[in-house]
Amino acid sequence: MPALLCAAEIAQRLAGLAGWQLKGRTIEKKFRFGGFREAIAFVDRVADLAEVADHHPDMLVHHREVTLVLWTHAAGGLTDRDFKLAADIERVD
Amino acid sequence: MPALLCAAEIAQRLAGLAGWQLKGRTIEKKFRFGGFREAIAFVDRVADLAEVADHHPDMLVHHREVTLVLWTHAAGGLTDRDFKLAADIERVD
Repeated sequence: MPALLCAAEIAQRLAGLAGWQLKGRTIEKKFRFGGFREAIAFVDRVADLAEVADHHPDMLVHHREVTLVLWTHAAGGLTDRDFKLAADIERVD
Repeated sequence: MPALLCAAEIAQRLAGLAGWQLKGRTIEKKFRFGGFREAIAFVDRVADLAEVADHHPDMLVHHREVTLVLWTHAAGGLTDRDFKLAADIERVD
């Protein structure tokens, strides 16, 4: 089980991730695309990363917007795995 | 602009769609799959139907569950387009 990060660690990691925000015990970011097709293609790319990481974000598709929500369910909050996956996703977008 | 359906019409159409529920001015259904991969494959199939219909459901992926929410934004509620797309999606699942 990965260790929960403390508030200071979370703030430090968030500072390195543009557009991600702390929401309760999760981090989330809204990605906007030119159209629905591009939004779905992004979902597919994130799904590939999620499978490799065995760590699955919640994904909300609203037409050309995709909101990703990350947290470590088994740990009950944010861990290193969430920030690693967020960083991987940033390299894809 | 498609016409808004009245409550009686909505009830009648919902009766023909297993698992879809009225939520405010939308209809929604939660689909459960054996794994994340299957859930994403379903999202992709729904996206293809949505593109053909030019009508785009909100889609929420939560690990192996996909929740679809349909309504006609331009009409401010439920129209024939929503029930047609829901019926198409039922044939895919």
